[in-house]
Amino acid sequence: MTATAQMLETYPADLGGVDRAALAECIDACLACAQACTACADACLSEQNVAELTKCIRTNADCADLCGTTARVLSRHTGYDANLTRAVLDACAMACKSCGDECSRHGEMGMQHCQVCAEACRRCEQACRNLISALG
Amino acid sequence: MTATAQMLETYPADLGGVDRAALAECIDACLACAQACTACADACLSEQNVAELTKCIRTNADCADLCGTTARVLSRHTGYDANLTRAVLDACAMACKSCGDECSRHGEMGMQHCQVCAEACRRCEQACRNLISALG
Amino acid sequence: MTATAQMLETYPADLGGVDRAALAECIDACLACAQACTACADACLSEQNVAELTKCIRTNADCADLCGTTARVLSRHTGYDANLTRAVLDACAMACKSCGDECSRHGEMGMQHCQVCAEACRRCEQACRNLISALG
Amino acid sequence: MTATAQMLETYPADLGGVDRAALAECIDACLACAQACTACADACLSEQNVAELTKCIRTNADCADLCGTTARVLSRHTGYDANLTRAVLDACAMACKSCGDECSRHGEMGMQHCQVCAEACRRCEQACRNLISALG
Repeated sequence: MTATAQMLETYPADLGGVDRAALAECIDACLACAQACTACADACLSEQNVAELTKCIRTNADCADLCGTTARVLSRHTGYDANLTRAVLDACAMACKSCGDECSRHGEMGMQHCQVCAEACRRCEQACRNLISALG
Repeated sequence: MTATAQMLETYPADLGGVDRAALAECIDACLACAQACTACADACLSEQNVAELTKCIRTNADCADLCGTTARVLSRHTGYDANLTRAVLDACAMACKSCGDECSRHGEMGMQHCQVCAEACRRCEQACRNLISALG
Repeated sequence: MTATAQMLETYPADLGGVDRAALAECIDACLACAQACTACADACLSEQNVAELTKCIRTNADCADLCGTTARVLSRHTGYDANLTRAVLDACAMACKSCGDECSRHGEMGMQHCQVCAEACRRCEQACRNLISALG
Repeated sequence: MTATAQMLETYPADLGGVDRAALAECIDACLACAQACTACADACLSEQNVAELTKCIRTNADCADLCGTTARVLSRHTGYDANLTRAVLDACAMACKSCGDECSRHGEMGMQHCQVCAEACRRCEQACRNLISALG
């Protein structure tokens, strides 16, 4: 059990029927994706062809910010607001889709950090969509 | 001219026809709202009746995170993605609406920090909606 | 291998002799601690005796912010600045120490989320100190 | 009076003798610097000679993160911890110094966004140092 799941287990109040496994998975996917995107932006800066990677760096930066904020919003349960949660998950899934598309293009051309990052984006996008479904 | 407007003035590439005044105003409103919400959450913690303010503190925390991330996304123009910008502005306006509603209830009951924070939330919500309109 | 370690493996330039294992462990400990602190602050808000937990909530919030920023700074290697890295790690270790002390006091009195959070803080504090040593 | 100063005016508890003007000025300087650095990193990405600006982009990113976290820590007064405040201000001043130095080099060579950003960094560095002095 990850620390995220442990924190959910020890929450002192009702979690309102949310699917804990989907929630924990989404939080952890957001954290992993935020890290991968921050690292990928920096790895792109160290590439010889950085001039061809500027869109990737920007998309990485947005995705890192969205994933970080989404992980925080999902970690709070007091005064839960389903509409805001959904809007944040939508925006996060959209950022992950854009960044995953951009990174996988470069990954296919041999940039390994973009490939690893694209996988983190795909997992996070899927985890966001799964959680949106689980929220009903 | 604020530093935000100056940074837009000195941007070395095309900004894609975006309304610079609406953009600068929205970024500055997000920064001010993020600060007010962080400070309001902490001020609530120092109130005698903190137990009645837990939803306010949570809403403040979400709003601060959303506004901070929105200010960052809006400060980037490389590889601009109108759909993501709109999704982020939607989520931010929603967070500002919730937080503004919650804070203004407490503001009416005499909590001055909630009153100041509610005004920052209203301004930011409006600035997000204005920018969404300006984006077309 | 975690995604963090994979991103370090695929970094396209020299990492300047840094101990990759210590670096990856510190980044992951920061991410886990940031999440635990955000969740613990919210769990405290849901406790009956929230009025006795206000210092814990504030310390959680600071620690979450410091850990999040430290994870980001450590994920960048372009134009590496050892002095800044050390200053950030010092501040982060200090935040983790304060938060770990505060949370473990409440953990001993039966608050399980504080106990889980205290452990995340201890691990992160130690990982920061290990990395400071590894940096020389 | 800025919103930041208004939030300090309406704080419901003792602020522990801190110089409110120095505190408000430092918070506002951090917010302005975080925005300028985020915008400058993106403006650098749009420059023809982005390959010569990679260190600047990285330094911008670190400075934006440090300034954002510092503004948050300084906005909290519950359970105030002078040692942590000082460590965070030290790290922030150091990030502003590095980024101000890097940006002013490019500013002197005609990059206006770097010049505007360098000024925001100088102001923030000075505001951090003034607040450290005011804290005693």
